[in-house]
Amino acid sequence: MKALEGYRGLALKLLQESGAQIGDLIEVTRDGESLRGFLMPRSEYDDENHVVLKLSSGYNVGLRVGGSVAIRVLEKGVKPMFKRPPRPPPKPGLPEAYVISTGGTIASRVDYRTGGVEPALNAEDLYSIYPELSELANIHTTLLYSEFSENLTKEHWAGMARAVAEAVNSGAQGVVICHGTDTMGYTAAALSFILQHPPIPIILVGSQRSSDRPSSDAPSNLIAALKISLSAPFAGVYVAMHESSSDEYIAVHRGVKVRKCHTSARDAFKSINAPLAARYHALTGTIQVLDDHLPLRREMGEVKLEERMDDNVCLVKFYPGMKPKILESILDSGLRGIILEGSGLGHVSKALYEPIRKAVERGVFVGMTSQCLWGRVNLNVYYTGRDLLKIGVVPLEDMLPETALVKLMWVLGRANSFEEVKELMTRNLVGEISETRWFQGCGP
Amino acid sequence: MKALEGYRGLALKLLQESGAQIGDLIEVTRDGESLRGFLMPRSEYDDENHVVLKLSSGYNVGLRVGGSVAIRVLEKGVKPMFKRPPRPPPKPGLPEAYVISTGGTIASRVDYRTGGVEPALNAEDLYSIYPELSELANIHTTLLYSEFSENLTKEHWAGMARAVAEAVNSGAQGVVICHGTDTMGYTAAALSFILQHPPIPIILVGSQRSSDRPSSDAPSNLIAALKISLSAPFAGVYVAMHESSSDEYIAVHRGVKVRKCHTSARDAFKSINAPLAARYHALTGTIQVLDDHLPLRREMGEVKLEERMDDNVCLVKFYPGMKPKILESILDSGLRGIILEGSGLGHVSKALYEPIRKAVERGVFVGMTSQCLWGRVNLNVYYTGRDLLKIGVVPLEDMLPETALVKLMWVLGRANSFEEVKELMTRNLVGEISETRWFQGCGP
Repeated sequence: MKALEGYRGLALKLLQESGAQIGDLIEVTRDGESLRGFLMPRSEYDDENHVVLKLSSGYNVGLRVGGSVAIRVLEKGVKPMFKRPPRPPPKPGLPEAYVISTGGTIASRVDYRTGGVEPALNAEDLYSIYPELSELANIHTTLLYSEFSENLTKEHWAGMARAVAEAVNSGAQGVVICHGTDTMGYTAAALSFILQHPPIPIILVGSQRSSDRPSSDAPSNLIAALKISLSAPFAGVYVAMHESSSDEYIAVHRGVKVRKCHTSARDAFKSINAPLAARYHALTGTIQVLDDHLPLRREMGEVKLEERMDDNVCLVKFYPGMKPKILESILDSGLRGIILEGSGLGHVSKALYEPIRKAVERGVFVGMTSQCLWGRVNLNVYYTGRDLLKIGVVPLEDMLPETALVKLMWVLGRANSFEEVKELMTRNLVGEISETRWFQGCGP
Repeated sequence: MKALEGYRGLALKLLQESGAQIGDLIEVTRDGESLRGFLMPRSEYDDENHVVLKLSSGYNVGLRVGGSVAIRVLEKGVKPMFKRPPRPPPKPGLPEAYVISTGGTIASRVDYRTGGVEPALNAEDLYSIYPELSELANIHTTLLYSEFSENLTKEHWAGMARAVAEAVNSGAQGVVICHGTDTMGYTAAALSFILQHPPIPIILVGSQRSSDRPSSDAPSNLIAALKISLSAPFAGVYVAMHESSSDEYIAVHRGVKVRKCHTSARDAFKSINAPLAARYHALTGTIQVLDDHLPLRREMGEVKLEERMDDNVCLVKFYPGMKPKILESILDSGLRGIILEGSGLGHVSKALYEPIRKAVERGVFVGMTSQCLWGRVNLNVYYTGRDLLKIGVVPLEDMLPETALVKLMWVLGRANSFEEVKELMTRNLVGEISETRWFQGCGP
């Protein structure tokens, strides 16, 4: 955290003159009245005219500066100290595990004095928060990123893949990635395509409540993730999160079939168009495999990377009355591919056929998914769907729109022709397309 | 259906010369070989060089024309005839009900000869398909539109609202709208805002399988919709569809809280962030009210319309790595408002802050919903959310993104200032925003 983060203009000047830093206990006096509190950070979108204090009541107040305002430091802030147990010495009998932190709630502590969220994921912190870990494995921690997950891009995905490969190829028996929940599904899909045949399960894990709240799901999720990564009989990329609001069951989702379906609940993550991969029973520490089509764990094996991705793509959700000019303006921005979230079985209004046709003629890949999320697209049921097929729209079966977007980025990074893009997008590579078991007989 | 729908160029010329029409049994001869079948329609995206026949085997074949092709009509097609019972005379004791058809699977018959789907919703057809109806009400039918629901626009919504108002204001005790399922949720939301305090329940109903398939959900849905509209104790706009795959329970959803969540299943419609309004028990014909906050049915009462809408709006789903230039190009197309589907509690990447800020400065309304769909947005939990608030993004609570888009169109059609737009968008008008009962305590 920067010394006077977010302050500009007059407020910054006055604070600098006083020698105050974020977290200091300061006193602000104006017209004979004084207020005391801890100096809070601001953001670049705040104005220049206020200093924000956290009062002892816990409330934040913004004080307007200017005129005869005086600022005085009463007490320098001290970084909050956690009482850390000494890191246990490596035990020869235990497996080696890697915990890679990328940010998000699970890898943070809230500093209640400033309200700021700070990364807390060196090995000592982990052992301090989760003492049980020292019985499970010798844990190596990497603080790879400290970023809100909405800010992650394909470069971060490649960086995570490299960190995973390094860990696996140096003999790790378990690899866990701590990740913000907002875009964990997108990252899980990306790693599923980038990491070529990992021999062990790579588990992404997050939490919906931070680890220093009593209601936090962080400890149960993290411990489950480690145990699953160390001992599950399958390999690949998965997400492990609460199955319900209780700590008892942790659901394991395929990385290409999972979606955050609630803004705040602990059981926000759902497998869509696929069974759960597995369920971890916290009370017994056992793993129940629920999908018998998962790739198997291998004793030995390196993981290779195919990390090139092209992000000249776009995800567009259709809605009735969508104006063709909006789709045109998106398509005119130099895209190489677009994923449509159509209605129902994969439809868009006929007003959009012409911009789509022009895009296809220019060599833009246009893939169709459904905003229903559940179920499979089918462009053969209604003649409007058949029209889209003739225009060149490619139906993407039961793939999640988000997974389809990530896959398209990856496919465009490696395919040499439009035909190869089409072939790869419609072929099941890592479980992103399910078989059509229960789809028969739908439609009029 | 047009006489030679979809044919162009040489194929059209040859067919016209032969006097053939869609549905005729014709013979196509080339190089001494002949094929017989029913002439099928084509679409404007088909090529000009093929004539398509449905063979007696049921398969369609495309025959290339040109060279020495000869076409001969063997038998003129006859419109398929249904054996309709005579329409029963109006019974004085029965209530008056209106069934308004707008298209979609529920109001169609498949013509198996041509594969075409034809509207079938005059009163005789209805009584023919659903003889039970004659015991329920004197039914007036209106074939308002015959359109796939992905092609409906705000003009259609206004037209439906006028048809509903006409029916209600002429004394109807029940009004049902048959609608394609693809965009039924959007239409239900639109009618919820346009129809001012309807005294009875207006029920939108659709089917996932057409009415002449044995597995069709059309009869059970339509009969339930009529009974609910005639006798439920609440008023407003609702969607009635199968609650599960069985015909036993029909779920009644608030028009502003419902979403199609499966491409093909009978129980595709779900209430999101709200309880079911009611459940209809098909075996007993009873209605179980599940939400005790619904507006009550009134014995008398007219319905007024507020039908003006502005569709210079857009729904944009965020994804990691979304390029600012894409959002800019959308915003530069003269929009007055945009609904973002952010990640998690309502986030987008910081790369998008600048285009959003510029749009807000130009007076564009920017509302935030969540792509999670379930749960409530909250821009106060993380400082990234607070940044968005400062930029001027307006959090839209637990409103569905689709409902928020429709509401924004309606609000922009009537508000006189940016402040009024904001005020109306964040105020619960017809149940689109739920109370924050179970949201307390979320976040880090």
